[in-house]
Amino acid sequence: MAVINKGLDNIYVKESKICFIDGENSKLYYRGYSIEELAENSNFEEVAYLLIHGQLPTKDQLDTFNSFLAKNRGIDEIMSLMRLIPKTSHPMDMIRTTISALGMHDPDASDNSRDASVRKALRMLAKAPTIVATFARLRKGQDAVKPDQDLGHAANFLYMLSGKKPTEREAKIMDIMLILHAEHEMNASSFACSVTVSTLSDMYSAITSGIGTLKGPLHGGANEAALKMFMRVGGPNKAEEFVTETMKKKEKIMGFGHRIYKSLDPRYKVTKPIAEELAKQRGKTALYETAVRVEDAAIKALAAAKLFPNVDYYSGIVFSNLGIDTDIFTNLFAMSRISGWAAHTLEYLDDNRLIRPKAYYTGTLDLKYVPIERRG
Amino acid sequence: MAVINKGLDNIYVKESKICFIDGENSKLYYRGYSIEELAENSNFEEVAYLLIHGQLPTKDQLDTFNSFLAKNRGIDEIMSLMRLIPKTSHPMDMIRTTISALGMHDPDASDNSRDASVRKALRMLAKAPTIVATFARLRKGQDAVKPDQDLGHAANFLYMLSGKKPTEREAKIMDIMLILHAEHEMNASSFACSVTVSTLSDMYSAITSGIGTLKGPLHGGANEAALKMFMRVGGPNKAEEFVTETMKKKEKIMGFGHRIYKSLDPRYKVTKPIAEELAKQRGKTALYETAVRVEDAAIKALAAAKLFPNVDYYSGIVFSNLGIDTDIFTNLFAMSRISGWAAHTLEYLDDNRLIRPKAYYTGTLDLKYVPIERRG
Repeated sequence: MAVINKGLDNIYVKESKICFIDGENSKLYYRGYSIEELAENSNFEEVAYLLIHGQLPTKDQLDTFNSFLAKNRGIDEIMSLMRLIPKTSHPMDMIRTTISALGMHDPDASDNSRDASVRKALRMLAKAPTIVATFARLRKGQDAVKPDQDLGHAANFLYMLSGKKPTEREAKIMDIMLILHAEHEMNASSFACSVTVSTLSDMYSAITSGIGTLKGPLHGGANEAALKMFMRVGGPNKAEEFVTETMKKKEKIMGFGHRIYKSLDPRYKVTKPIAEELAKQRGKTALYETAVRVEDAAIKALAAAKLFPNVDYYSGIVFSNLGIDTDIFTNLFAMSRISGWAAHTLEYLDDNRLIRPKAYYTGTLDLKYVPIERRG
Repeated sequence: MAVINKGLDNIYVKESKICFIDGENSKLYYRGYSIEELAENSNFEEVAYLLIHGQLPTKDQLDTFNSFLAKNRGIDEIMSLMRLIPKTSHPMDMIRTTISALGMHDPDASDNSRDASVRKALRMLAKAPTIVATFARLRKGQDAVKPDQDLGHAANFLYMLSGKKPTEREAKIMDIMLILHAEHEMNASSFACSVTVSTLSDMYSAITSGIGTLKGPLHGGANEAALKMFMRVGGPNKAEEFVTETMKKKEKIMGFGHRIYKSLDPRYKVTKPIAEELAKQRGKTALYETAVRVEDAAIKALAAAKLFPNVDYYSGIVFSNLGIDTDIFTNLFAMSRISGWAAHTLEYLDDNRLIRPKAYYTGTLDLKYVPIERRG
């Protein structure tokens, strides 16, 4: 009997210099920099540059990079398509389709060189927030807000979403959230990008596969599920009872556990104080308090199983208090992760090998074809 | 040093009852039936049923299946989108985008059950030929031809493409070609579908990933490349010289070799006589003769390396003589392969495990963040 590596747990599919997760010691590094250090000192554009190009940019490099992004935020080429999208569409179906469509309009569409692939990735990175904000408004019958080139990536997104310029702190919080979601090693969506591009397909096909993969509730969507769970609890005082009941029913506490982390997710540590800060500032502390009490009870109940809260546990509360609709949280994840997907796609292409595993056949062989009138 | 399984060669990612390739003995089976037997006795709809449902249908089952397909051929829900697609778009970008868009219009969009997933797959299978034919006509300034419910799947496709009903033999040849391309075990595109759906994403996301992966020249596109190669040779008398020169330059003979087959691809054996028949019937034998002479010379030159002609070697000549534009050959592949992709996606979901491999980190760690003004 052959060994079946279903799930590919612990199978290394490439060498990589992009990301390291030390799951035992709560550490996450992008290109060698710890996530805490980047969240505290850097900004999303710089982190995207770091992931894609391999090192932090000089001032000139960052200026060029930012200017390319800012100039490419417009989505005129797909605005007619945006208006055709049913208002009730799943936001991940929407972004999968529109990003795919951008591939037909990209000025480098027929150029599959490395440089062109980088430009394609940056255009997607620039345009994705505009797509997300535009759909979020159009489906409510609001006019789209044009991007503002004078705002940074995160601030401009919040501006396009609400029509109002965010405070400096709101923009900074959005920026930190984008940094935290930018990259996470060879997860299912990054791997889907690699499988796709390993046939020498193109950057748009790769990112489209990444988006379709992220859509699944086992990957993206956990922060939305966690937020909805907090709403179901019924207040801080019901937290212990909720955890006990959930355990009894053998159901999951959303936002807990991760295949790689066997300790606290370092992104959780960055997110929790932000969730608290925003909740207090908005005067909406009940949901945050509920989350804290559920967390305390769940940590006691789940520590033996090495299940700890991950980034998704508090990020939904943060996004919600930034005024973002629950059902587009996974769009935000995609907007940010395009940087990591692009980095993995380019790295894979730099030393490409077609990804072509096998299935172990357990069916029958040499069946005789029976004409349809004699089947029964 | 960890073992890196780049390409996942010889890694089994699941057990499967869908397809078996005996690469040493030139055998290919769908659900236990040899490809020769199916090509001779069956038809594409029946083969699609076999792949998706696991056994050949009874008369009643096939009637229901065919009726569902025929009724779902229309693409009114995306005709406005079809008209927005740039005429110069890569046909694989076009079908990736339109299939993705169909996911937003599917009546089962919010239902992720197995039954709904089957219906979604069948709708894609039904609509894909209409999408391909419509784009092929619109880009030439021709009106789209509505599907004819009274024609079979293959005949209707040729009808929508040309506006003329095909002969019975032409329809049969198209049907055989669809059968040959319907499934081929855990190749890159089928694997991409599995990676995507392993997060519990949906059938449209899976198939969209499959299409984007098929786009790459290491997967789809080889028959187009082979046809163009025959055109470059400059006639049958130049064949030997062409092969010698190609070997000298260490370039590939297109349509030769396969990671799994170490002998003749059985689909090649079905395709070659059809290519000859059509070439003679069309009075266009020069290209076919060129292909035969290149093949003879290349087999001698490459047999030691166990490189033999595969399905792509003659299929381009067949498609071309059916009046199909060279650059949509890979669209035909996708149209057919949706059946195999759907079968793999459903089988994977029946015993799902998130596909989450690892990357082996070879970068640095614990870099100190340097403020931008001090970099250089």
